[in-house]
Amino acid sequence: SRSIRLAVIPGDGIGPEVVAEGLKVLDAVAPAHDLKFEQTSYDLGAARWHRTGETLPDTVLEELRGQDVILLGAIGDPSVPSGVLERGLLLRARFELDHYVNLRPVRLFPGMDTPLSGVKPEDVDMIVVREGTEGPYAGVGGVLRKGTPQEIATQESVNTAYGVERVVRYAFEQAASRPRRKLTLVHKDNVLTFAGELYQRVVKRVGQEYPQVSTDYVHVDAATMFFVTAPQRFDVIVTDNLFGDIITDLGAAVAGGIGLAASGNVNPDRTAPSMFEPVHGSAPDIAGQGKADPTATILSVAMLLDHVGAPEAARRVERAVADDLAARRGRPARGTAEVGDAIAERVSG
Amino acid sequence: SRSIRLAVIPGDGIGPEVVAEGLKVLDAVAPAHDLKFEQTSYDLGAARWHRTGETLPDTVLEELRGQDVILLGAIGDPSVPSGVLERGLLLRARFELDHYVNLRPVRLFPGMDTPLSGVKPEDVDMIVVREGTEGPYAGVGGVLRKGTPQEIATQESVNTAYGVERVVRYAFEQAASRPRRKLTLVHKDNVLTFAGELYQRVVKRVGQEYPQVSTDYVHVDAATMFFVTAPQRFDVIVTDNLFGDIITDLGAAVAGGIGLAASGNVNPDRTAPSMFEPVHGSAPDIAGQGKADPTATILSVAMLLDHVGAPEAARRVERAVADDLAARRGRPARGTAEVGDAIAERVSG
Ligand SMILES: CC(C)[C@H](C(=O)O)[C@@H](O)C(=O)O
Ligand SMILES: CC(C)[C@H](C(=O)O)[C@@H](O)C(=O)O
Repeated sequence: SRSIRLAVIPGDGIGPEVVAEGLKVLDAVAPAHDLKFEQTSYDLGAARWHRTGETLPDTVLEELRGQDVILLGAIGDPSVPSGVLERGLLLRARFELDHYVNLRPVRLFPGMDTPLSGVKPEDVDMIVVREGTEGPYAGVGGVLRKGTPQEIATQESVNTAYGVERVVRYAFEQAASRPRRKLTLVHKDNVLTFAGELYQRVVKRVGQEYPQVSTDYVHVDAATMFFVTAPQRFDVIVTDNLFGDIITDLGAAVAGGIGLAASGNVNPDRTAPSMFEPVHGSAPDIAGQGKADPTATILSVAMLLDHVGAPEAARRVERAVADDLAARRGRPARGTAEVGDAIAERVSG
Repeated sequence: SRSIRLAVIPGDGIGPEVVAEGLKVLDAVAPAHDLKFEQTSYDLGAARWHRTGETLPDTVLEELRGQDVILLGAIGDPSVPSGVLERGLLLRARFELDHYVNLRPVRLFPGMDTPLSGVKPEDVDMIVVREGTEGPYAGVGGVLRKGTPQEIATQESVNTAYGVERVVRYAFEQAASRPRRKLTLVHKDNVLTFAGELYQRVVKRVGQEYPQVSTDYVHVDAATMFFVTAPQRFDVIVTDNLFGDIITDLGAAVAGGIGLAASGNVNPDRTAPSMFEPVHGSAPDIAGQGKADPTATILSVAMLLDHVGAPEAARRVERAVADDLAARRGRPARGTAEVGDAIAERVSG
């Protein structure tokens, strides 16, 4: 059987709880597909920061580089100043491991509730390809005259032809492989003219290599409107790091809630391991109560399986989730482990 | 009767059509409130740019400074490169006239359709106070090595204590005057740490002067989720220029559509005229067909009336709009002028 080195970062809050269920499902599906996951767990997050002041130490980063793939729960805790763990751990991992594609499917499973009225599952089926290693997330900026009436705080969005082209190319590949073959660039090129024009030019140029893919453009503000009034407008979206963050949370809300939204931080060139994680955060308000929904993590495990070249196992997990979701209607809410058990049973059954 | 100098910028696309109805309603309501609007129309927008290459010439800007208040329709046309009119005309006016508050009520009128199921009018009643003169809209940035594989495009968000404090203070004043007395800061302080922390500190400091107002914080990505799952969470929101742009389009979609969303670009210090405009754009696809909904412009006229110190006239216009909206249900769609006529008749009646 094929052996795959899996790094596990349970993280903070509900992270460990949902990751446990993700691993349960992974363990249940692996044998039938001749896969063996050698797991190493990494103690990173709020507790470690409090204990040692470390977020993602260089030594740990080097160890992670030696793994094949990473599963992450959630990062962040109110006891840690905002940004410390996000920038020092989560974003550091994404940047250092060159996760230039942040892949976020937005899909409404049959039978799921959506806050939108009159929307059917077939109306919500898109993939957001969010840039992951530059843009407003670059961390460039600073503060001058802090705390004085003359204070200035800047944040710079840094966008490179190199960085934009590779994510746009990935998005075209995705679009070309889907039935509708449509790619929408989401940006704000009428205001952020420098970055927006770069994205526009790259989409136009790369698009010539994909004549079978139709392309269009929507401003990010208008895109949020379409998400709630006409989600069927979108097939594949390519966008920058910040806009992608915003519209995928909205997408999750529209597609049945943040409890279901999976994501992959992907390094398509495989120069470093990719990292899969639910879109939701650490939800400290419900941590430790065994009531977090592990479905987003389990769907992230399916994406992980696709990434390691086990598409059949991935489809099996997705089907099990879809069946479990369909069976939820009208039933009392279950706890984290119960949902994990039910899905694990379906994949092994 | 009191005389008020009103600059009118009909602009592009459906702009002239909706502005005509706004003025119709203004003319209908003014006499009863002893107001006289001396109108001057300014030919700005795509046609002028094609003819002369001008967007907002200095001479016109100086004339605008001499007016009391401005009504704007919409700016933008596909025949003009993206950003030219937006930055050169609309944003230039907002920045030069120091419209540091971009005021955008998000309110669901009774009887209106919303894409959300199970949401009642009382659930959607907030005011977004969007910063209008700095942040990512500053226009700072540039391109290096354009068109080469080494191209870099930057956009800088510039945030000053001066700029943040004045808009935050305005938001606290708004919150203090509303029954719920709640102010939510929307930002992304875990990633945009420099700008986010400045906003956080200013909210905290200014908040000490408003002990009766409760404050909280929501990340912009989470805010978009709450807009569709729990809009009642929000009373007054303060946020930066870009986040404000995004969430108010979403807010408009939630609150019955972009055809109803009004806004004011306000200079609260009255060192220059404020400018009122619908949130929607020039909608070139339906321009000239007499089918654009003028309601957003008419509600912007109500905001304009408030600004010039005629709150009774403002309420009268709002009531007329509410009544007209309630009467719309189940009736065939009307044209732009019909809607304007109906509301004008209600305000004069
Ligand atoms: C926690 C935060 C840094 C992160 C992001 O903004 O990318 C999260 O919101 C996400 O979407 O994965
Ligand atoms: C046209 C554009 C520059 C403008 C903005 O981004 O502010 C518009 O979207 C708005 O919301 O008024």
